[in-house]
Amino acid sequence: MKQSNFAAGALERLRAHMKDRRLDACVVTSPVHVAYLSGVFPLRDRYAAVIVSDEQTLLVTPGRPAGLPDGMELAPYEDYSIQYVLDLSANFASALEGALPRIARSGGRLGIETAHMAQAHWRIVERLWRPLHLEDVGSHLQNMRMVKLPAELPLVQRAVEITDRMYAAVAQGVREGDSEIDAYLACLGIVKAESLSPTDLEGDFVSGPRTEAIGGPPSARRLEAGDLLILDLFPRAGTHCADHCRTYIVGAPRQEHVDRHALLVEALESGERAITPGLPARELYAVVRSVLERAGMAQYFPHHAGHGIGVTPSERPRLIPGSAEVLAEGMCITLEPGVYLPGRGGMRIEDNFLVTAGGSRRLTGYPRRLTVL
Amino acid sequence: MKQSNFAAGALERLRAHMKDRRLDACVVTSPVHVAYLSGVFPLRDRYAAVIVSDEQTLLVTPGRPAGLPDGMELAPYEDYSIQYVLDLSANFASALEGALPRIARSGGRLGIETAHMAQAHWRIVERLWRPLHLEDVGSHLQNMRMVKLPAELPLVQRAVEITDRMYAAVAQGVREGDSEIDAYLACLGIVKAESLSPTDLEGDFVSGPRTEAIGGPPSARRLEAGDLLILDLFPRAGTHCADHCRTYIVGAPRQEHVDRHALLVEALESGERAITPGLPARELYAVVRSVLERAGMAQYFPHHAGHGIGVTPSERPRLIPGSAEVLAEGMCITLEPGVYLPGRGGMRIEDNFLVTAGGSRRLTGYPRRLTVL
Repeated sequence: MKQSNFAAGALERLRAHMKDRRLDACVVTSPVHVAYLSGVFPLRDRYAAVIVSDEQTLLVTPGRPAGLPDGMELAPYEDYSIQYVLDLSANFASALEGALPRIARSGGRLGIETAHMAQAHWRIVERLWRPLHLEDVGSHLQNMRMVKLPAELPLVQRAVEITDRMYAAVAQGVREGDSEIDAYLACLGIVKAESLSPTDLEGDFVSGPRTEAIGGPPSARRLEAGDLLILDLFPRAGTHCADHCRTYIVGAPRQEHVDRHALLVEALESGERAITPGLPARELYAVVRSVLERAGMAQYFPHHAGHGIGVTPSERPRLIPGSAEVLAEGMCITLEPGVYLPGRGGMRIEDNFLVTAGGSRRLTGYPRRLTVL
Repeated sequence: MKQSNFAAGALERLRAHMKDRRLDACVVTSPVHVAYLSGVFPLRDRYAAVIVSDEQTLLVTPGRPAGLPDGMELAPYEDYSIQYVLDLSANFASALEGALPRIARSGGRLGIETAHMAQAHWRIVERLWRPLHLEDVGSHLQNMRMVKLPAELPLVQRAVEITDRMYAAVAQGVREGDSEIDAYLACLGIVKAESLSPTDLEGDFVSGPRTEAIGGPPSARRLEAGDLLILDLFPRAGTHCADHCRTYIVGAPRQEHVDRHALLVEALESGERAITPGLPARELYAVVRSVLERAGMAQYFPHHAGHGIGVTPSERPRLIPGSAEVLAEGMCITLEPGVYLPGRGGMRIEDNFLVTAGGSRRLTGYPRRLTVL
């Protein structure tokens, strides 16, 4: 499947919104939304924009990325020269200046991401277009991403399966005396097998007392008998991410750990049973929390109960008390109950689900058991 | 040494520039320059600003980072809530709105980074201050960073020494049949020993035919006898970076490899002998290139001859033909001749130097030899 299939769908969604809001054009500049609308993440530290009108789409970016949606035109700019010192912002600005007149007449209604477009580039848009009306489309783009396009689902599923294999590798290869970075290395073995880049592997790798801080990068700390090890993995497989968490125990688990893990599984399963289109995200949070509450543990559950996944590893809908979002068929979400006890360590588990017409489908393959290392 | 020592010096430099340009205040928002002026890198995806007037300095950022320069005030904003959905851009904007009146009166001469400040935040600055004069300080901040502050030198040196140890680990542990990711893992062992995070390890890890592309992330490709392996390492140790390159050979080197490596060493040493305050950066490029030119290899040297290092691994001065920069005492620079032959692979070596009154001091400890794996 051409990866840009989802981007073509994303462009359709944006055009529907533009019609609703009577926007003549949008200039989208945040890397995540450029990727969502083009199928290609811009290189780091490179300015990029997708300019969308009723009928045209234009990508301003260095080089000529492959796999763009059909009909997307390119306005490339120079980002590397051995001969002279480049000003990337100025080069992007020039390309923008050349591209804008190709795609929409001035004076209309315009959408931009106000939290992202740089002042220097905004001045060009303002001068060339003199928009009669300016509107922030950043929040709408985030909302648009909640229900996955059909072409996104296999991409999310691939990231889920890679994560499953990482957990299996840790269970097989990491033992007492190994460090948190060794657990990270076990996951990197899967990155290698999948021909991803190490930069695509992100996550929390914390053990022992560090688990009380919920997360953090791996350190040289070595695993001791009785330690908990939290591995929250959110790798990116191309454009899309999964986001899982497992807690391991080093050596024989104490009853307390077995009980707490069972409680987390119960909370997660209660959430899973509740997932259904139409359910407010805040109610799903309440379902997960209520299990911990009945066990007197709610005060040690300081974070969200889950969130969406897609082109980012953490996005809307947000499963928190103040969320106004409502579950809908096609959303991909996580559930992640955690309990962090002062002096006794933290535990968390997290699975990924697709919201279906009838409820949900679990995407995660790796079992929920407390794995002994 | 308190890390913020260098930030205090950086603030002094910015104030001197503000005096020259009669700027009443600056609002600096790019992560690198926030780090340079505060000693602390903002968290990823978090807006931050350093607001500087004649007498006051204010950091707008989530939380309360430790180790700020003496006298730097804080304007924190909320970036995490379990209760409600946050709009980080709006929260940052509010903090900015509260902070601006504390630090400067409106109507004066203002400096910002036009290539970075978001439209939404610019609108606030514009509305509150109605600057009579707006000036981009982004390029000046980059120039300011070229000559290192005394407190920066041990920070660069630490990153250099960490890189030296990475090369030693690769030489000791990587062999034919291992993959590029295994070479990456050998470097990660040093990251672990130094209690850095894997995210602080960046570089190029390319072998065999991949060396012709100059660089790239590690892949699962396995090393074969006769392969070249380019490791360009630019780790970040806290706030500061080094940037080195070594080319290894897998198994017995052919005469061609020995000769080409000797040529690169000669080019690098010619550059090293030429380094002196007052030398134009473009002339240093020419010195390095001329050695390759005499050997008929200049057409296979497609990139710069080096660049500055500091809070980023690649910054001004840029050693290219079109550079207008001139070497000065206290700059930290790299020299990196490379030759990439179609069908025969690429080789590159790179060392780090401090420009001194009398010429240069080599920072790199690891030898320049062609190491056989």
